[in-house]
Amino acid sequence: MRALRYHGKEDVRLEEIEEPALQPGTVKIAPAFTGICGSDLSLYYKGPFAPMPTATEPHPISGETLPVVFGHEFSGVVEEVADDVEGVKVGDHVVVEPLMVCGECPACRKGAYNLCEKMGFIGISGRGGGLSEHIVVEKQWVHEIGDLPLDAAALIEPLSVALHAVKQTSAAEGQTAVVGGAGPIGLLTAAVLKAKGLTVIVSELSEARKQIAKDTGVADVVLDPSAEDVAAKVYELTDGAGADVAFECAGVPVVLQTMFDSLGVGGHVEVVAVYTRTVELDITANLTMAEKTLGASIGYAHDHEEAIELARSGKVDLATFISSRIKVEDIVDKGLARLHDHGETEVKILVTM
Amino acid sequence: MRALRYHGKEDVRLEEIEEPALQPGTVKIAPAFTGICGSDLSLYYKGPFAPMPTATEPHPISGETLPVVFGHEFSGVVEEVADDVEGVKVGDHVVVEPLMVCGECPACRKGAYNLCEKMGFIGISGRGGGLSEHIVVEKQWVHEIGDLPLDAAALIEPLSVALHAVKQTSAAEGQTAVVGGAGPIGLLTAAVLKAKGLTVIVSELSEARKQIAKDTGVADVVLDPSAEDVAAKVYELTDGAGADVAFECAGVPVVLQTMFDSLGVGGHVEVVAVYTRTVELDITANLTMAEKTLGASIGYAHDHEEAIELARSGKVDLATFISSRIKVEDIVDKGLARLHDHGETEVKILVTM
Repeated sequence: MRALRYHGKEDVRLEEIEEPALQPGTVKIAPAFTGICGSDLSLYYKGPFAPMPTATEPHPISGETLPVVFGHEFSGVVEEVADDVEGVKVGDHVVVEPLMVCGECPACRKGAYNLCEKMGFIGISGRGGGLSEHIVVEKQWVHEIGDLPLDAAALIEPLSVALHAVKQTSAAEGQTAVVGGAGPIGLLTAAVLKAKGLTVIVSELSEARKQIAKDTGVADVVLDPSAEDVAAKVYELTDGAGADVAFECAGVPVVLQTMFDSLGVGGHVEVVAVYTRTVELDITANLTMAEKTLGASIGYAHDHEEAIELARSGKVDLATFISSRIKVEDIVDKGLARLHDHGETEVKILVTM
Repeated sequence: MRALRYHGKEDVRLEEIEEPALQPGTVKIAPAFTGICGSDLSLYYKGPFAPMPTATEPHPISGETLPVVFGHEFSGVVEEVADDVEGVKVGDHVVVEPLMVCGECPACRKGAYNLCEKMGFIGISGRGGGLSEHIVVEKQWVHEIGDLPLDAAALIEPLSVALHAVKQTSAAEGQTAVVGGAGPIGLLTAAVLKAKGLTVIVSELSEARKQIAKDTGVADVVLDPSAEDVAAKVYELTDGAGADVAFECAGVPVVLQTMFDSLGVGGHVEVVAVYTRTVELDITANLTMAEKTLGASIGYAHDHEEAIELARSGKVDLATFISSRIKVEDIVDKGLARLHDHGETEVKILVTM
């Protein structure tokens, strides 16, 4: 079968490889649409980093080394089902929760499998990926999507990231949320918050992304931190109370500070971006004096069903976040390189085989 | 009447001043015992800082400038009650929640009056203090203590600080808590956690304080970070799960890091100490990868009744934290200077008039 495999830094290849065989407990799926993620971009341009294996160091769960099939945000159609598998049948439209976990570490035992010590991703750490004609996946990671269109469904994975972050907080209907950064995860976080009945204020510098935040309807208000004092404006919009919750989706210390400054007493900042450097934190000013709290979340665990329901019910319109559709042959030029050079005009690029 | 007044840095004077007069809505109290607090010590040796007024800048709520009567941790006996006051009578034993708040700011409107924008303390910001023969206090800040001894009751104020910090977290029976630092607030935090049915591990460097933590029975385990790897030991004691919650009661970055390292996935660090400097925080390692959270609390709001109940029921034995009893004439030599020079051998010094 044809598959796009990651061999190393700036080296992905469309190759003919052996079709994976159905095993007990698994389902064979024909991927339909695969989204390109920010981590795909980093892996392509920076080279492999955990949880991706290297050419010599295998991933602890998959046992595989490079090359691996690429693509972890995907939907597909069930082609074959192992005899011992129930609850899914040939022809079902599904998404894959693209994980591999040890099942034994303290996090797994607590059900927080997104924090598994050995955590891996299908499409990054081995076990195939969305950018292939067929993939065999353990039943537990396969979620039916019913009548949700297969293209929109490729965004269930990043929507689950956003939903998981929101669920880590006490965000509730009627509250005000601030989202810092309107990249794909910021936009989807805003969409989840809006779906849950919060007033959503998005702070974003880029003209293109501000426009997307407006066009997709996920923000009640879009603020530009280069043009106005975001925290002062949030206070004004909330009659002096400040926001209840804020989501740092930029990974930039000044945005983190703006999130703190926008909150009212008892407010919570959830960091959704992954910080690559330490930050200088004034605990007294940012936390103590207004009893604010700081959390950070990653991935998802037990979130896909609710994400699918949010999309199926129309509360989150995933189609609006699809900005381009390309063929796998064009993955570099029209996918990775485009996101690298003109990322702010794109939200989600979908790839088909 | 006699009163100890704070005039400035290293300048407190036992003076004859006018006895305060009962006003509508107030209660006159004869203070019985007054505890010396870490902030009293800082104010004495460093000079006035907010929320203490200066000689020329009045406190925004009390309107008073220096000198002010000193002492905010006190118990006493009701001497006189204004005609319009109900629910308290002459002879009642009480403690004072020593606050003055604006009642109008967003925090006050939310009931989080400990975060009042203009926040002041009786005994620091004006309106008299515990180190006097009489004090007149608004009824709302007066709490009956029933048969709780008046000496132990002087510790209800710091116990309320500890209780408030614990209540900011989801600490619950059966969990494991780590407390970093066994000064007065660390010990009382440990005592509250123990009373709530948690297993309590205290980390403390000082020999004297380690001994106090053992003698008062607030810790199930006392660890010395100079002698052992506290986080590794906590993991060992919890069968590899890590602690559920940790309390930073030292105000030292390395202790904060130990608190993070001692927690299991989803754990929470509550900072109870007041940090005077920024800290370098690795969000990804400390928060994201195990979805830990960080909070910080200050003071108390709606906590005194529960603190009194904890002490009256015997779940927290406040008497065990009284380390010395002195007369007001000796406040400097046997009180402030002793805490300054030999603080680690003391927990709470009580002063009488």
